[in-house]
Amino acid sequence: MPEETLTGTLLLSCPDQRGLVARIAQFIFTRGGNIIDLDEHVDTNEGLFFLRVSWNMTGFALSGDEVSNEFQPMAEEFQAQWTIKLSRTQDRRRLAIFVSKYDHCLQEILWRHELGEFQADISLIVSNHTDLKSLADLHHVPFHVFPINKENKLEQEQKELSLLKNENIDTVILARYMQVLSPTFVAEYPNNVVNIHHSFLPAFAGGNPYKQAYERGVKIIGATSHYVTDNLDEGPIIEQDIIRISHKDTLADLIRKGRDLERMVLARALRLHLQDRILVHGNKTVVFD
Amino acid sequence: MPEETLTGTLLLSCPDQRGLVARIAQFIFTRGGNIIDLDEHVDTNEGLFFLRVSWNMTGFALSGDEVSNEFQPMAEEFQAQWTIKLSRTQDRRRLAIFVSKYDHCLQEILWRHELGEFQADISLIVSNHTDLKSLADLHHVPFHVFPINKENKLEQEQKELSLLKNENIDTVILARYMQVLSPTFVAEYPNNVVNIHHSFLPAFAGGNPYKQAYERGVKIIGATSHYVTDNLDEGPIIEQDIIRISHKDTLADLIRKGRDLERMVLARALRLHLQDRILVHGNKTVVFD
Amino acid sequence: MPEETLTGTLLLSCPDQRGLVARIAQFIFTRGGNIIDLDEHVDTNEGLFFLRVSWNMTGFALSGDEVSNEFQPMAEEFQAQWTIKLSRTQDRRRLAIFVSKYDHCLQEILWRHELGEFQADISLIVSNHTDLKSLADLHHVPFHVFPINKENKLEQEQKELSLLKNENIDTVILARYMQVLSPTFVAEYPNNVVNIHHSFLPAFAGGNPYKQAYERGVKIIGATSHYVTDNLDEGPIIEQDIIRISHKDTLADLIRKGRDLERMVLARALRLHLQDRILVHGNKTVVFD
Amino acid sequence: MPEETLTGTLLLSCPDQRGLVARIAQFIFTRGGNIIDLDEHVDTNEGLFFLRVSWNMTGFALSGDEVSNEFQPMAEEFQAQWTIKLSRTQDRRRLAIFVSKYDHCLQEILWRHELGEFQADISLIVSNHTDLKSLADLHHVPFHVFPINKENKLEQEQKELSLLKNENIDTVILARYMQVLSPTFVAEYPNNVVNIHHSFLPAFAGGNPYKQAYERGVKIIGATSHYVTDNLDEGPIIEQDIIRISHKDTLADLIRKGRDLERMVLARALRLHLQDRILVHGNKTVVFD
Repeated sequence: MPEETLTGTLLLSCPDQRGLVARIAQFIFTRGGNIIDLDEHVDTNEGLFFLRVSWNMTGFALSGDEVSNEFQPMAEEFQAQWTIKLSRTQDRRRLAIFVSKYDHCLQEILWRHELGEFQADISLIVSNHTDLKSLADLHHVPFHVFPINKENKLEQEQKELSLLKNENIDTVILARYMQVLSPTFVAEYPNNVVNIHHSFLPAFAGGNPYKQAYERGVKIIGATSHYVTDNLDEGPIIEQDIIRISHKDTLADLIRKGRDLERMVLARALRLHLQDRILVHGNKTVVFD
Repeated sequence: MPEETLTGTLLLSCPDQRGLVARIAQFIFTRGGNIIDLDEHVDTNEGLFFLRVSWNMTGFALSGDEVSNEFQPMAEEFQAQWTIKLSRTQDRRRLAIFVSKYDHCLQEILWRHELGEFQADISLIVSNHTDLKSLADLHHVPFHVFPINKENKLEQEQKELSLLKNENIDTVILARYMQVLSPTFVAEYPNNVVNIHHSFLPAFAGGNPYKQAYERGVKIIGATSHYVTDNLDEGPIIEQDIIRISHKDTLADLIRKGRDLERMVLARALRLHLQDRILVHGNKTVVFD
Repeated sequence: MPEETLTGTLLLSCPDQRGLVARIAQFIFTRGGNIIDLDEHVDTNEGLFFLRVSWNMTGFALSGDEVSNEFQPMAEEFQAQWTIKLSRTQDRRRLAIFVSKYDHCLQEILWRHELGEFQADISLIVSNHTDLKSLADLHHVPFHVFPINKENKLEQEQKELSLLKNENIDTVILARYMQVLSPTFVAEYPNNVVNIHHSFLPAFAGGNPYKQAYERGVKIIGATSHYVTDNLDEGPIIEQDIIRISHKDTLADLIRKGRDLERMVLARALRLHLQDRILVHGNKTVVFD
Repeated sequence: MPEETLTGTLLLSCPDQRGLVARIAQFIFTRGGNIIDLDEHVDTNEGLFFLRVSWNMTGFALSGDEVSNEFQPMAEEFQAQWTIKLSRTQDRRRLAIFVSKYDHCLQEILWRHELGEFQADISLIVSNHTDLKSLADLHHVPFHVFPINKENKLEQEQKELSLLKNENIDTVILARYMQVLSPTFVAEYPNNVVNIHHSFLPAFAGGNPYKQAYERGVKIIGATSHYVTDNLDEGPIIEQDIIRISHKDTLADLIRKGRDLERMVLARALRLHLQDRILVHGNKTVVFD
C-alpha cells in the first residue's frame, strides 16, 4: 500500500462509564497506531456512549482480523455494539443499487463512484423495470431485472436476496426504487438499506410527496435519506436538505428542483455510511461528520 | 409629504382574461401615475390572475378614497378581490400583538418597529399573562391582560374583540401566543391574523414541536408563519425557514436555535403582510417579494 | 404545435417614463395575446425601466418576425434594448460548450439537456484537450479540438469563431474551460458567454480559488456564474451559491464539495439565460426568476 | 453546586505524536473524571494535533488550579498551547463590548445574555459616542465614553486598556465599533478580541462593504466574525453566514438584511469563543462545534 496510508476505524456505542476513551486510546497506542480523528459523544440523558476513532495503521502490529479479535474481549466487557473497518481495498464494501425508472439518483452515484468519491464497489444493479439497463451497461455494472407484482413479490424478493448473498453484498441503496421491501428483506440488512425519500420527513410521508407539498402550499421542499425499517418512511434519518420554492413553481418545477435535492442528499448519506460515520440507536442516528 | 414619495399599491386577484394588465396599467397611466413595481402571475391550471402593482402618486389626480371609488367598477367587471393602499402615514395599519410568556418574538417586532422596518403602528399588546408587561411599558405600548381558562375563554375573547374594534386594529400578530383562537375570533380578521408556529409545517403540528422533532431525530428544524384559520396549524403558509441540528443538540438546544428562526420568520412574514405582498387563494398564498 | 402552447417573451430595458407598461400590455392585448407572466422593475436611482413579459400566442395574429417588426417603432420611441423570442422549436438557441479536462459541468449540462430542462440545442463542444471526447461521443455531440498555446491562441480563436458562425451558435458556455478568451472573441458574443468561476466572487478571483480559500481559512466556499467581459472574473454576475466547510476539510475536500456547487450554479444560470430572464445593465444583472 | 454539574474543558494544540489521546484521557480518568465530549483533529499536512475535551468533575479529586498545576508537566512535554477552564460561576469570563452608534449587535448580545445563552459576565460597555448609553443603562451595564479623534487615539486607548485591566476583562467584543484598534491594544488581547465585519470576507474588506457589494452586483451578501489582528479584516475567521439578495434590493435593503446577519454571526462566534471551542493556528481556526 505505497500510495495511500492504511487506516483503521472503530465505530462503537455502549452504556457510558468512566475510562472508556482512555482504554480504547490505550488499546490503539500500545499496538502502534496513531489516532488521526476521534469524535466522542455522550447522551447524558440516556447514559449512552458513542465513539468513532480512526488511526493510522503504519507500523500497526496486527492484521484486520487480529485487531478485531484482540478488541473483542474489551467490547464484551463494555457491552458494546461495534465494528472495526480497515481501509484496505479488499475490505471495501460491496453495494447493490435498486432502481425503478428514474435515472437521476443512479446517474449521480455512478458518476461520483467513477470520480472516486466512494470507498466501495458497485457490484450490481437490481430493478423491477428494464428502463435503466442501458445506463448500467454503459458503466459496466451487471443489471438484474426482477419484475414485481402483487402475486410474485415475496418470491422475487427471495431471488433478490439469493443474488445479494451470492455476491456478498453488504449495503443496499434504494435509488428511487418504487417498491416497498418486506420485513423479511429488511431483516437481512439491518441498518444497511439506505433509502431516499423525496420529502422533508416526517412531512409528506407515503406516495406523491411533491403533489402533497404543492397542494399544501409550502415555501420549502426537502429530501430525506434514512435507513429502511419495517415502518415505511419512519427509519432513522441520516441526512436531510431543502430548497426554496414559490407560488410560481408548478408541480413539474417541484419535481425538477427535487431531483437535485434527492441525488445530493442520497450521495451525502451514502458517503457517510461508507465512511462508517453513522451509529444508530433506537430510531435516531449519531452522525460523526 | 416632502420627504417621501407617495405611492399607491393595488393587490388584486380574479379569473384570468385577456387585457387585464393593459386595462389596469392604463387606469394608472391616465390618472398620472408612474408604475414602479409590477408583478403578475397567472395560475394557468386554475385560470386565476394575481397582480401587485405599485405606482408613484406624484401628480396623481386623485385622493386615496377617490382612487378606490374610480377603480370599483372595473374591479366588479373583473369579479376581483382587491385592495388599494396608499403610503400615507394616516393610512398605516394598526397592529395588536398577542403574547403569553415568551418574549423573543415580541422583542424582535418591537425593535424592528423602532428601526422603522414596518410601515405600521403597534397600537397595543394583549396577553393572557402579566409576564411581559414591563417589556411593553419600556416601549410605551399599552398592555392588556385577559387571563384565560376553560370557562371564560369565549367571554374574554369577546372583550378582546371589543378592544380591537375600539382601537381600529386591522392586523393581529400571534407572537407565540399560547391560546387557540375560536372560529368566532378568526372570522373577524380573515387573512389578518398572522401566527408563528415553531416547526416546519406540516411536520410537527400541534403542541411541543421541538420535542417531537427531537424524538424523531430530524437533522433540520424549521419555523412557519401562516394566516390563522379555523383549523389549527393548517392556514395558508406565508414564510418558512430552517436551521441544521445534529445529534449533539439537546432539546434545550433545539429550543434555543428555534427561537432565532421563529423571530426571523415571523418578522419577514409580517413585513410581507404590511407591504401588501400577499394574496390568499384557497389555502395557499401568492407572495410577491 | 398541439402539445405545447406557443408563447412569446419580451425582454426590455429603457429609460423610465410614464405609461410604458400600459402601452406594452396594450400592444400584446390588441394582437390577441394573453399575458401569463409579467415582472417589471424600475431602478429609481438611475431612472431605468426593466421588463420581462410572456404571453400566450394562441390566436395571436402575427408570426415571430412580424411581432418584432410591429414592435420596432415603439421600441425606438422608448430608446429600448429589447428582444422578442418565441417558444417555437425552430427558434431554439444553439449552444456551444467549451471545456478542458474537468467533466463535471459538462456531464451536468448534457444530462439536464436530455431531461428536457433546457429549451436549446447543444450543437457542439469545443476543447483545448481531447480528454472529454468520449463523453461527447456518448451523447452524440460533435467534439472539436483546438489545442492552445501562447503562439497560436489568437489564430485558434479565429478558427473557433468561424466554426461558431458556421453553426449559427448564439450562446457559448464555459464549463470549466481553462483558457481566457480574448477581447476579440468576447466582443462577438456580448452577454452571451456564460462562465462558471469556482469561488464566491469577488473573493478569490484568478487562479486556484480553492487553494486561496483553504489558505485564508474561510468557513464557506462559493461558486459564481457570470457573463464574460474583457476583465477576467469581473463580468455581470448571474447566480451564486455557497456551501459550508470546516477545519476538517482538506483542499481535496474543497475541490470535491465545490464540484457540486459549480455544476448546480452553472446549470441554474444557463436555465435563466435560456429562458430570457436576464437583463444586463452596466456591470450588473436584473434577473427575473 | 447542586443545580448544575461542574465540568472541566481542556483546549490544546501541539505537534502530533502517538499516544496523545491515551495519555490525556488517562489523566482525566485517573483523577475520577468522566469524559462527556471529546473532539480531536490532526492536520496531517502540518503534523499538528488539536483537541477539545470536556469531562464531568463530579468526584474529581482536584480543584481548578490543582488540575492546571498537575497537567502542566505533561503539557510542557507535548510542547502544547493549552487552557483548562472550569464551569464554575466564579471562573466565568468577563466581557467588554465596544460599540459606536449602531445598536443591533449590542441589543442582540445583551438580550441573549439575559436569556442565559452566554456563560460570561458583561462587565462594561465602551464607546466613542454617547448614543447607546440609554440602552446600556436599561440593562444596568456600566457605559464608558472615550471620544476618539486623530490626535487622542493612542492616549484614549491607553485609558481603555487601564479600565479593562482594572475590571479584569478577558474578552473584548467589537459590536460594530467603528474604530481600528492599534497594534498595541491588540497585543494585549491576542485571540481575545472578536470582531464582526459586514461582508463575506475576504470580499469587500475595508469600509462600506454593503456599498461595494451593491455596486458589484453580487447575488449573496455575508457577514464574518473573526479575531482581530494587526491586519485589518485579515484575522482568523471564526464564523460566516450569508443571505440572498436580488436586483430589487436597494443599498438600504442590503443594510437592513445585513443587520440580521451581523448580529446572528457575532452571537454564534461569541458563543463558540465562550465555550472554548476555538483553537487558532497561524491565521486559521479549528472550531469544535
